[in-house]
Amino acid sequence: MLNFNYYNPVRIVFGRDTINQLAELVPTNKPVMVVYGGGSIKRNGVYEQVMTALSGYRVSEFGGIEPNPRYETCMQAVAKGRQEGAGFLLGVGGGSVLDATKFIAAAIPFEGHDPWDMVVGKVPVTGALPLGCVLTLPATGSEMNINSVISRTSTKQKVPFKSEHLFPQFSILDPATSFSLPMRQLANGVVDTFVHVCEQYLTYEVNAPLQHRQAEAILLTLIEEAPKLQNEPDNYEVRANLMWCATQALNYNLACGVPTDWATHAIGHELTALFGLDHARALAIVLPALLRYKCRQKADMLVRYGREVWGLTAQTSEAVIDQAIEKTTAFFESLGIPTRLSDYQIQQQDCKEIVDRFEQRPAKVGEHQDIGAPEVAAILALAE
Amino acid sequence: MLNFNYYNPVRIVFGRDTINQLAELVPTNKPVMVVYGGGSIKRNGVYEQVMTALSGYRVSEFGGIEPNPRYETCMQAVAKGRQEGAGFLLGVGGGSVLDATKFIAAAIPFEGHDPWDMVVGKVPVTGALPLGCVLTLPATGSEMNINSVISRTSTKQKVPFKSEHLFPQFSILDPATSFSLPMRQLANGVVDTFVHVCEQYLTYEVNAPLQHRQAEAILLTLIEEAPKLQNEPDNYEVRANLMWCATQALNYNLACGVPTDWATHAIGHELTALFGLDHARALAIVLPALLRYKCRQKADMLVRYGREVWGLTAQTSEAVIDQAIEKTTAFFESLGIPTRLSDYQIQQQDCKEIVDRFEQRPAKVGEHQDIGAPEVAAILALAE
Repeated sequence: MLNFNYYNPVRIVFGRDTINQLAELVPTNKPVMVVYGGGSIKRNGVYEQVMTALSGYRVSEFGGIEPNPRYETCMQAVAKGRQEGAGFLLGVGGGSVLDATKFIAAAIPFEGHDPWDMVVGKVPVTGALPLGCVLTLPATGSEMNINSVISRTSTKQKVPFKSEHLFPQFSILDPATSFSLPMRQLANGVVDTFVHVCEQYLTYEVNAPLQHRQAEAILLTLIEEAPKLQNEPDNYEVRANLMWCATQALNYNLACGVPTDWATHAIGHELTALFGLDHARALAIVLPALLRYKCRQKADMLVRYGREVWGLTAQTSEAVIDQAIEKTTAFFESLGIPTRLSDYQIQQQDCKEIVDRFEQRPAKVGEHQDIGAPEVAAILALAE
Repeated sequence: MLNFNYYNPVRIVFGRDTINQLAELVPTNKPVMVVYGGGSIKRNGVYEQVMTALSGYRVSEFGGIEPNPRYETCMQAVAKGRQEGAGFLLGVGGGSVLDATKFIAAAIPFEGHDPWDMVVGKVPVTGALPLGCVLTLPATGSEMNINSVISRTSTKQKVPFKSEHLFPQFSILDPATSFSLPMRQLANGVVDTFVHVCEQYLTYEVNAPLQHRQAEAILLTLIEEAPKLQNEPDNYEVRANLMWCATQALNYNLACGVPTDWATHAIGHELTALFGLDHARALAIVLPALLRYKCRQKADMLVRYGREVWGLTAQTSEAVIDQAIEKTTAFFESLGIPTRLSDYQIQQQDCKEIVDRFEQRPAKVGEHQDIGAPEVAAILALAE
């Protein structure tokens, strides 16, 4: 096992009718700004539950955060927050809203030239407004980690950043909030969760059997529960199990003591930035291709994955690995998520810009830091 | 899945040569009191590593915390800590030392009549000195939770208490510190860990497949790794895997959204208080008997346990349950831990005091709160 440092102080309040606990969680001595997305929370009753719970607070609000939240939109929220003297931010929505809330929390007290400098790592995040979350879409795990991903329209960039200042103080997870989501978003959430687990699991063997089993626990549960989204759309337990899987997949417990490979996200972010693909749909294209490209380097863990997660019994490692990747692809496709660039009419020549961007990066990605521009080109070719 | 509230802000620093990170973790502006046990840390080099890391700090120390730490000893530490003006406590040892450190941390600033009142719940814990931990014995999970158990010699009591004020700020887990432990303590640690998992797993089904698999992940890893303690005594990876299992078993992630049954610990504490049995050895007697007594009520989860953890293939539920309990007992015995009261020459009539104590309790125990004095008598009879 590798040495590690783990810290995660996010309080999770999980279950039915938990939004009314907001008043016990949000500090009363500061003006609160509620941040949300395109307005679905006004149609499904979540907005009303939140505002009812916050009656008595000084509350302002900023709606209109888009999927893959944009710097330009966030900066409008920053201006509003400063104007209102916001002292606490409450993100109400999915990962995009929460990622935006984290950026806004760091940007409001930021005294430098441009908060974007924090995103691209030019200056460190030295503080942030305290924030909390009411989650409505299980997927990104942002509700229990320090991560945020912000996109910039003018430069077609999608950039991850993080800081221990960006932990939510709490996240309320009421699985019932997901009942109003379209199947497309639910399926995206399952795939995002699945890929998060794989990125902390399918690397190389360091003798960490507990962590491997904890990863398999989530994958097996996703495979078991996801089909029920369509077959049992009113089943609360299915929503609850998938929501808890998403949070557990990226609170970094799985990453304790093992190598991690975030290359799928790195390449996926570029596909989203350039072609507008849903985040999870980009991942569903990249992961199988990356596993094929790296199948020898990742052989030990891919064989384990095939046997433990998919129950494969083929004799040879090669056969298990091939079948495991096929099973993965078939699982994504079964949820209505395509796994090929050609499914989106994206040609190899369109990907040249992505390869060029990896050429510009100061560091390679992957658990061995050996995925640079030529390797990205090869992976995208396999995803054709 | 049941509703839940999860919060665990303990920073874990895990791995080889991590004790030297103490200076980054312990605040520099307060006198530090180091709390430890019978002196084994002076023989195995841990004391020296700690003191070297703390050079430059104002450091006092209190040694002599015993297994099943005694209120009387702890109060001597409280007096010393007050006298020295301790502002931060560092527990260096196993669960007993850490449990004691938690009590001492709450007792030093306590302004009431007697800190024991906090233990028995007469007054709440309203604050505590900040504390940290260097763990040397994987077992109790105390390094990543708010629990403490304190014994009182004069009244032969062993009482658990807890408070969110008692989270360690950090715990350093260097698996190499366990190399000098006797096999008896290592085996005890495995059994304590195993029982902690069972108490959050073997209850009734609430549709929580992820949590079940997370519990099984730890049990399977214990069963796989524990035999290597004897066969590969110099294997660091074995120590690391068992240490991480112990922490993960009782940081309450497993308890999220599921019922819990702490009856084994409740009864086991009394066996230790009255007869001086090692904590884990008391649990190894109680758990199999409790599972036999409750085999109908716990049938769903016992069958799952038998099939998933022990790979049992018997046709009937009854056969799987019987075999699963036998396997559990055999596993404990294989580690040199007896599982019968008679192995310690304890007679049924000796247990009358335990039953009387459950008669006095204000509440029954178990996941259905249906284990009172008569049920305890029946369970102890099955453990004869």
